[in-house]
Amino acid sequence: MINKPANIQLDEHGRLKHFLSIEGLSREIINQILDTAAGFAGVNDKAIKKVPLLRGKTVANLFFETSTRTRTTFELAAKRLSADVLNINMNTSSTSKGETLLDTLRNLEAMQCDMFVVRHQDSGAAHFIAENVAPHVNIINAGDGRHSHPTQAMLDMFTIRHFKGDFEKLRIAIVGDISHSRVARSQVHALSTLGAREIRLVSPKTLLPAEMASFGVEVFHDFDAALDGVDVIIMLRLQKERMRGALLPSADEYYARYGLTTERLALAADDAIVMHPGPTNRGVEIEGIVADGHRSVILQQVTFGIAVRMAVMSIAISATEQSSARSSHS
Amino acid sequence: MINKPANIQLDEHGRLKHFLSIEGLSREIINQILDTAAGFAGVNDKAIKKVPLLRGKTVANLFFETSTRTRTTFELAAKRLSADVLNINMNTSSTSKGETLLDTLRNLEAMQCDMFVVRHQDSGAAHFIAENVAPHVNIINAGDGRHSHPTQAMLDMFTIRHFKGDFEKLRIAIVGDISHSRVARSQVHALSTLGAREIRLVSPKTLLPAEMASFGVEVFHDFDAALDGVDVIIMLRLQKERMRGALLPSADEYYARYGLTTERLALAADDAIVMHPGPTNRGVEIEGIVADGHRSVILQQVTFGIAVRMAVMSIAISATEQSSARSSHS
Amino acid sequence: MINKPANIQLDEHGRLKHFLSIEGLSREIINQILDTAAGFAGVNDKAIKKVPLLRGKTVANLFFETSTRTRTTFELAAKRLSADVLNINMNTSSTSKGETLLDTLRNLEAMQCDMFVVRHQDSGAAHFIAENVAPHVNIINAGDGRHSHPTQAMLDMFTIRHFKGDFEKLRIAIVGDISHSRVARSQVHALSTLGAREIRLVSPKTLLPAEMASFGVEVFHDFDAALDGVDVIIMLRLQKERMRGALLPSADEYYARYGLTTERLALAADDAIVMHPGPTNRGVEIEGIVADGHRSVILQQVTFGIAVRMAVMSIAISATEQSSARSSHS
Repeated sequence: MINKPANIQLDEHGRLKHFLSIEGLSREIINQILDTAAGFAGVNDKAIKKVPLLRGKTVANLFFETSTRTRTTFELAAKRLSADVLNINMNTSSTSKGETLLDTLRNLEAMQCDMFVVRHQDSGAAHFIAENVAPHVNIINAGDGRHSHPTQAMLDMFTIRHFKGDFEKLRIAIVGDISHSRVARSQVHALSTLGAREIRLVSPKTLLPAEMASFGVEVFHDFDAALDGVDVIIMLRLQKERMRGALLPSADEYYARYGLTTERLALAADDAIVMHPGPTNRGVEIEGIVADGHRSVILQQVTFGIAVRMAVMSIAISATEQSSARSSHS
Repeated sequence: MINKPANIQLDEHGRLKHFLSIEGLSREIINQILDTAAGFAGVNDKAIKKVPLLRGKTVANLFFETSTRTRTTFELAAKRLSADVLNINMNTSSTSKGETLLDTLRNLEAMQCDMFVVRHQDSGAAHFIAENVAPHVNIINAGDGRHSHPTQAMLDMFTIRHFKGDFEKLRIAIVGDISHSRVARSQVHALSTLGAREIRLVSPKTLLPAEMASFGVEVFHDFDAALDGVDVIIMLRLQKERMRGALLPSADEYYARYGLTTERLALAADDAIVMHPGPTNRGVEIEGIVADGHRSVILQQVTFGIAVRMAVMSIAISATEQSSARSSHS
Repeated sequence: MINKPANIQLDEHGRLKHFLSIEGLSREIINQILDTAAGFAGVNDKAIKKVPLLRGKTVANLFFETSTRTRTTFELAAKRLSADVLNINMNTSSTSKGETLLDTLRNLEAMQCDMFVVRHQDSGAAHFIAENVAPHVNIINAGDGRHSHPTQAMLDMFTIRHFKGDFEKLRIAIVGDISHSRVARSQVHALSTLGAREIRLVSPKTLLPAEMASFGVEVFHDFDAALDGVDVIIMLRLQKERMRGALLPSADEYYARYGLTTERLALAADDAIVMHPGPTNRGVEIEGIVADGHRSVILQQVTFGIAVRMAVMSIAISATEQSSARSSHS
């Protein structure tokens, strides 16, 4: 007899069914995603960048918050898996006619969509949808509030593994607006699950949530000190539009203390790589020539992002198919 | 020698070429649509929900009126038939540059689109377009003004047949804002063509157009009385945005007299089914637990709607292909 | 050893890599496009209008300026070549979050898009992008400022060749708002490269740029005189929204002097054809019955436009593929 696990992301056999957050995923599942993505990275280099794994499946992008860039990466990943893609702008859909979110979900389920890619401004939205969705639908979190942006964290892990290899040897700094970042929290979970040697969080005191200290990380407010010996520098985007008034003095002062300049980069390990989720604010959190320099792997992150999203989608669909094949034979 | 029939929906062999309204369709054609849809309902259950019937065809969704939900069902139906789909928001297209509607149509024809799915706020718009379109293009009416919404009516017929079987044994009540409903008129035509035993229209006096009395229906203003012995209850959506001022006292009073509650449902036949075109206004025309209850088939209507739209599209395209095959051999 | 040619549109073997303007293209390349389009015109007549030439390729439509009609023709062309298509409205994309245009391009390159179709309000935008894009990406200019609209000019050449044959025998009049037309300049380059017997520009003095006189054309301000013996009449759209105040007296007076009426058409050769890029302003630059008459080939232009865009896309992609095949074997 099999017990239903507490983790809503996994099915009763412990396979990834929904991809909501890094929290709660084992090192095995994270490595399964990375290994699968490595296969797809090859597909994306070929002249014909298409595999038939999701042929005849329908993927609906449910974006409650506009993000052309993120939506584009998921749309490309789904199309390269041969899925049919529906883009539904949830701000203008029938929710504005008084239909509740759950009614909208029930309708998309009834249209036999196979997967919802969800982007929402509220933390926990993707979890809420996963808890309420029909069994045949997979949920992928494409960013919810400040909470989580797990495919971004996974593509970061893929990039680190690709360029630097074994996590247990690596010192990694995550730098910037930790408070308002959907990504930082997911990165910390992923890095600690993968056994990174050291995780350093670098941030002004006003932009670091108190609970982060308990995650087995080292906290720095002095960027220069934090760079000593680091192999990977992950810069965060300064979410100007999210900050309330007085948390920061000015963009100039922020850049002086937390901007990644050429001089500062010299304090890290000689072969350190520079990462950023994009789009970069040049002259605010990173110097232009560092973003474009030979230590930067920012564009490779984008490329690997397609492969990682293809991996997450195909793993989740495959778990559901195996479950329904089993249940239809029992 | 073959005479051109008066009904613009049919070709010279009496086959369905445009799908504009239920009015004027024979029982044979309605049953052909239902039987074809039954085949596609199976396709939508499969892991690969795709058939190649419209491969290489271009379907253009011409929506003069926004309806994410209806557009999505047609887009899914076309993609599952392997068509290429163009979504054209006619409010922002070159009609605003002073191009007339007919110029726009001529251009889409010249781009060798094969089918236009038309949604328009004016009654008769789809007919007007069908009268003026090139012979190689099929028109599907996705709702025009108060006039007609024939694919919705067909999916309702499919749902009734699926759950209740033979129409000649059935008493069916259609309840609510008959005046402003595109659907009610189409439903009455379909049900009477299919030989339903009894069609009961239930509505406040202010929301029932006078001409409806002539359609072989029974008119009720007392919902409780109308429910006696009915097998199928079709609730209509209260189109709040369409009503002018003083037709209704208040949503509360409407619900008290015409809302489908658990108590009221008990007055119908024991195995009566509850239908609604969605999205529901819970607490206005239907109680939430009735909409979600075991007698409700509201979500099955949505599922069957994809199959019915696939059926209408493939039947219409097939008539055109047979005509052009014949004319190219003559 | 092969020298990199000065013309950015060509690769090091002289093959078409980007399609930016007619200027600088040889008669051989223009004829290659026309001949390839002739093949695709046949595809668009078939029941299955699809060829697998761009299967697994990703085409991104980057529209900085809205043009539903032009975007639709490129989207259809790409889909009929079996490409995956991304429509990116550049006005609402992350450029509004402060991302620069080049950052956006770098990201789309990193997502392994194969082709950008660019529409921009500024002259030279497509050239700028071609100069800065990664080597694996092809750029197609879908109209930039007043500068160039080369696929429109090519479909005009295709239409003329289809109906009238050898350019060296043809007298062609281009009539209207030459100043504000993206098309006229491209047409003049194409016609003179193809060796047209006579190119006549017909325009009010205020709407004819001075430099045009140097292009080997004849300039007319009297439309009637210009029509004598012409085989092809290309009417331009009066870009009302682009004109500044006092260049024109009134639409009525414009029509009286430069509108193509039935009477005026009688002054041209008996078998002259009438062309217009659409959408037409009936009663401003052309009489309705002339636009719809048997001498008009306006709708055929639209049809041939799909084939011409398929030709340009497939030729450009094929140059890039041959280059990368060669470089991967060297």
